Amino acid sequence: MTRPSFSPADLEARAWLKKKILESGLIFRCDGAGNIFGGIGGAGKPVMAGSHIDTVPGGGMFDGSTGVLAALECLRTIKERRIPHARPLELAAFTDEEGNLVGDFLGSRAFVGLLDRELLEKGTTPSGRLFKDLLEGTEFTVEGFLEAHKTAPELEAYLELHIEQGPVLDARGVPIGIVSSIAGKRYRWCSFLGKAGHSGTTPFEERRDTFLGLAEFALESSRLIAAHYPGAKANIGQIRVTPGAFSVVPGRVDFSFEFRSQSAETLEALENEMSALANDIAVRRALSFSSRIVDRTTPLAVSPRLTGLLEAEAAALGYPSILLPSGAGHDAQILGEKSDAAMIFIPSPGGLSHSPQESVRWEDLEKGANLLLHALVRLAEK
Amino acid sequence: MTRPSFSPADLEARAWLKKKILESGLIFRCDGAGNIFGGIGGAGKPVMAGSHIDTVPGGGMFDGSTGVLAALECLRTIKERRIPHARPLELAAFTDEEGNLVGDFLGSRAFVGLLDRELLEKGTTPSGRLFKDLLEGTEFTVEGFLEAHKTAPELEAYLELHIEQGPVLDARGVPIGIVSSIAGKRYRWCSFLGKAGHSGTTPFEERRDTFLGLAEFALESSRLIAAHYPGAKANIGQIRVTPGAFSVVPGRVDFSFEFRSQSAETLEALENEMSALANDIAVRRALSFSSRIVDRTTPLAVSPRLTGLLEAEAAALGYPSILLPSGAGHDAQILGEKSDAAMIFIPSPGGLSHSPQESVRWEDLEKGANLLLHALVRLAEK
Repeated sequence: MTRPSFSPADLEARAWLKKKILESGLIFRCDGAGNIFGGIGGAGKPVMAGSHIDTVPGGGMFDGSTGVLAALECLRTIKERRIPHARPLELAAFTDEEGNLVGDFLGSRAFVGLLDRELLEKGTTPSGRLFKDLLEGTEFTVEGFLEAHKTAPELEAYLELHIEQGPVLDARGVPIGIVSSIAGKRYRWCSFLGKAGHSGTTPFEERRDTFLGLAEFALESSRLIAAHYPGAKANIGQIRVTPGAFSVVPGRVDFSFEFRSQSAETLEALENEMSALANDIAVRRALSFSSRIVDRTTPLAVSPRLTGLLEAEAAALGYPSILLPSGAGHDAQILGEKSDAAMIFIPSPGGLSHSPQESVRWEDLEKGANLLLHALVRLAEK
Repeated sequence: MTRPSFSPADLEARAWLKKKILESGLIFRCDGAGNIFGGIGGAGKPVMAGSHIDTVPGGGMFDGSTGVLAALECLRTIKERRIPHARPLELAAFTDEEGNLVGDFLGSRAFVGLLDRELLEKGTTPSGRLFKDLLEGTEFTVEGFLEAHKTAPELEAYLELHIEQGPVLDARGVPIGIVSSIAGKRYRWCSFLGKAGHSGTTPFEERRDTFLGLAEFALESSRLIAAHYPGAKANIGQIRVTPGAFSVVPGRVDFSFEFRSQSAETLEALENEMSALANDIAVRRALSFSSRIVDRTTPLAVSPRLTGLLEAEAAALGYPSILLPSGAGHDAQILGEKSDAAMIFIPSPGGLSHSPQESVRWEDLEKGANLLLHALVRLAEK
């Protein structure tokens, strides 16, 4: 699956989803950010269930879509069976959760009013195209993204079903995960600057080898985090060495550094400790270090009201469940900035995700969707 | 300077050098590999002085050209002043010393008959063009390269003046270096294979992170070499991480690994120890390691006959000199496979080379060229 938001495949999927919403007798709505909604009327603040239908390039069938289609099925069931409810119910499919355009969670950020005009006007996609130019030829505009939150209702609660994208539920043989918290993250783009030199003629002790600086930072940062910050994670996933020749000592290295934690305090502590570590290494190796923030999200602690409700409903249905933190980010995390938000995970066999091999077991998906249905009905009762 | 062999700038430089050779009354000759010669007649095996006129992309004015132009000036002086000599004298400018096409020392390898037909017929340049296609539009052919050695005379001796490309002479304030040996090298293209995964959801202990494997290899290999192989050097100068995203643990890393030594035994020992180290790391981190040889040269030990002669001539001229090994490779190393070969180094201010900032002091160049002249005259005596 390669279905980034606003690609031809995504436009086709949007049209398909709109048709399904209308065929199901739900009220169709699309906001200025391209977020798609399908509703059932009621009184008071609505209860929403959603996720996203975009994918990473070369992704799988289930990351995101599972939650949107489970929500659709829940609302169809409520409508067809005339299940009693007081509040309005709404499904949502948020634009560009995967961040294929200019930063992730674009649609949910628009929904809660957390978008920056400069990002939308000057931001470029990974292929170097201006985001606002990419919108040409669609019905969407930068203004529409910035104003989407004005049409967003205040929510009673937001629920999101999603595949775990990790190995925990599958390894433990548990069909249902109830997310206790979602990690926040910092993305930094970093550089060590040293001095290029002929590797045949420059003695080790005179080198200012930036790659050895990065090697030390990579090993030491992951050692420190594993030892002192349980549950926190980090990754170096992109590296660019300059000048990049067999016999030239790297005079510059640019690299991505990402770290995550379930706690805002830990993120802040990591920010300080990792920066101190990089600067220490730079001083010892006669390099200079610099970095800039590229993206950040805040950790979400799910309210006991919602985790408790999900645990009780799972137990009533006879589904084994565990509470677990989410290392990956989700739209629920952004919705959680304004509303009570919670998530249901179902197992990812082998922990696989962001891969064509990503899968779900249908019996797990059925349990997850049933739990979503029962929780929605409970939350919409009054 | 960006003057790779057979580029328009190089073709212009070749024409200029041919004109200078003819204007100087020397006998012009060019072999099938594009090596340019300028000779003075005599009897017996010739004495040759040379280097190269090609440069790396973005290189300096002095790497190579200094030796060719010093040789030209020596032969002009011998001719103009009618300095007595018995043997023929010849200057040489060897094609593509820098290896911008398909492996370095192409011209000198052709001269001594060490070229491989497959390399020339199937080898591609860094821009992906077949080497043999690049020759179209020039007067040169693959056959010509392979047969160049058939027109090469057996040499009495080969001398090469070159900038040091390192910091030793400049730091010690000595104008003349007499090269005792030239390092041999191995270029390997290596890969660690592991497993890509979402960095937010894959616990440290379940990762098979190839970049951490490379980081450990980089630090440990340079530590081992500095500690146990004095004078040997290594470098990791090119790195490609796959898939290469902020939040994906690197499932694959490809990198260049180069090591050098003045001793063939040390090169062989390094080959074994570095391969064992990489495989150990791979086993510990659940990765696999593979590598293939990309290029290799044999170390050259300069004969005491020639180092002794150069030391004696430098002393007679009143020039301070030291014996020193060369970490960089040179045409002299290839010529040394068939003939007695030696080198004179002059200081590189700041140790700078392969850079537009590369320089020489004219007074050092004058001393180097004078020493070359006196050594050539002595070697050509009988």
